[in-house]
Amino acid sequence: MCELLGMSANVPTDITFSMAGFLRRGGATGPHRDGWGVAFYENEGYREFRDPHPSIESPVARLMLDYPIKSRIVISHIRQANVGEVNLSNTHPFSRELWGRNWCYAHNGQLTGFRQELPLSFYLPVGTTDSEWAFCWLLGEIRRQYPEPPEDPSALQELIHQSCEKLRSLGVFNLLFSDSQHLYAYCSTKLAHITRRAPFGPALLKDTELEVDFSACTTPRDVVSVLATEPLTTNETWHIMQPGEMVVFKDGEVITERFSHSSPSIRV
Amino acid sequence: MCELLGMSANVPTDITFSMAGFLRRGGATGPHRDGWGVAFYENEGYREFRDPHPSIESPVARLMLDYPIKSRIVISHIRQANVGEVNLSNTHPFSRELWGRNWCYAHNGQLTGFRQELPLSFYLPVGTTDSEWAFCWLLGEIRRQYPEPPEDPSALQELIHQSCEKLRSLGVFNLLFSDSQHLYAYCSTKLAHITRRAPFGPALLKDTELEVDFSACTTPRDVVSVLATEPLTTNETWHIMQPGEMVVFKDGEVITERFSHSSPSIRV
Repeated sequence: MCELLGMSANVPTDITFSMAGFLRRGGATGPHRDGWGVAFYENEGYREFRDPHPSIESPVARLMLDYPIKSRIVISHIRQANVGEVNLSNTHPFSRELWGRNWCYAHNGQLTGFRQELPLSFYLPVGTTDSEWAFCWLLGEIRRQYPEPPEDPSALQELIHQSCEKLRSLGVFNLLFSDSQHLYAYCSTKLAHITRRAPFGPALLKDTELEVDFSACTTPRDVVSVLATEPLTTNETWHIMQPGEMVVFKDGEVITERFSHSSPSIRV
Repeated sequence: MCELLGMSANVPTDITFSMAGFLRRGGATGPHRDGWGVAFYENEGYREFRDPHPSIESPVARLMLDYPIKSRIVISHIRQANVGEVNLSNTHPFSRELWGRNWCYAHNGQLTGFRQELPLSFYLPVGTTDSEWAFCWLLGEIRRQYPEPPEDPSALQELIHQSCEKLRSLGVFNLLFSDSQHLYAYCSTKLAHITRRAPFGPALLKDTELEVDFSACTTPRDVVSVLATEPLTTNETWHIMQPGEMVVFKDGEVITERFSHSSPSIRV
């Protein structure tokens, strides 16, 4: 299995603090030694840093901690391989272009029967993972139904949610996904999120001895949501997502929540 | 205008030496301060490092010099903007997937009338440069004519060459382009290359006081070709390409040369 980290913010925000804890799970506080990657959106621009080595030993990971890149949407992944060998082409996140936008995708879980159940059309995988295959299928479904961006965003959200439900029926499928404007998070088994806003307070990382006082580096208007497979801090209350739940973030805020039709659950 | 750097090798090779000179042109020995990027192929895997800041001041560029990534195909670009503002989405190289392969593209030059002359189909630009538009057109043409990889590689080479000739008719179009297996280089005004093989000797960089003795870090079987807008070393003889010439590299060797039909020239 792998771990996911995501961020959505209303102003370009540096995610160094969260990454400092997260990347320790790639070989120090967690067993995810089979590569890692992070994608940053800077407006519609997009860049990834990926390394097929453990994040705890990766010079590229050290750069990420020393060189704060400010971004409004971040997706990161550390890998513990199940399907597909350990190499660069199997290292998340994956990206493709649709509608003149960079789409980014990272998956935690494992799928069976994906080659039979998920016919590909426009996008083809470069590597050999179930994850990239599912990404190509998902984006191909969106492209097939919407050759151009739909005017009604809820129709697209519904398509993504239903596609995720199908993917969950093939195994475990926790997802972070973005089109450069929204961050989509889908929970199959394990995903948590927290939204930080004024008044900001201190946060204490679980994976390393590091505390930050967000009030010292934010303005009262900043809104930042962070997602992770497991909560990254010990002194805050994270929202634990339900199986089948999809949450859509924009500019740091939750704008939509959808729950599974097949196993409805109510947030408490 | 911009500058290009490329490499093709028969074994995974670190391009740190050439990059040390090249990246100085991004603000020190050259005026190309509007961003830079580099793409590495590691087998079929692909990763890019891009920064919309001058390479001479970029922490990501410093990482490239401190952390040698071994690759068989490298494409790098430093930008001096003409069309499109300075931001991440306008920073080369650009990439898209076709046939389950990552295609990478970097362009030096400037095109006029590209929106009218180059109709887009499958691929759409994310940024606003003439360069990315031309890439989307070029890859779309390949996809339209060859939905699957052609059995005869010379047919593909001919299509790429003819497409480059059309692009050259719109302005200045020097190109580095790869499908993860071949490196295509097309010269409109300025591009040079050199192939190094045993017996290897010393090389002296033009842009910084750095000399390397390749015989100390190679085996007798290594073959490495390097391309650049202008020769990077002062003590070696580089091949200066002709306008309209396309050279295809594979595993460090020149495997094909094509010349312009409209302005034929003979190499001397």
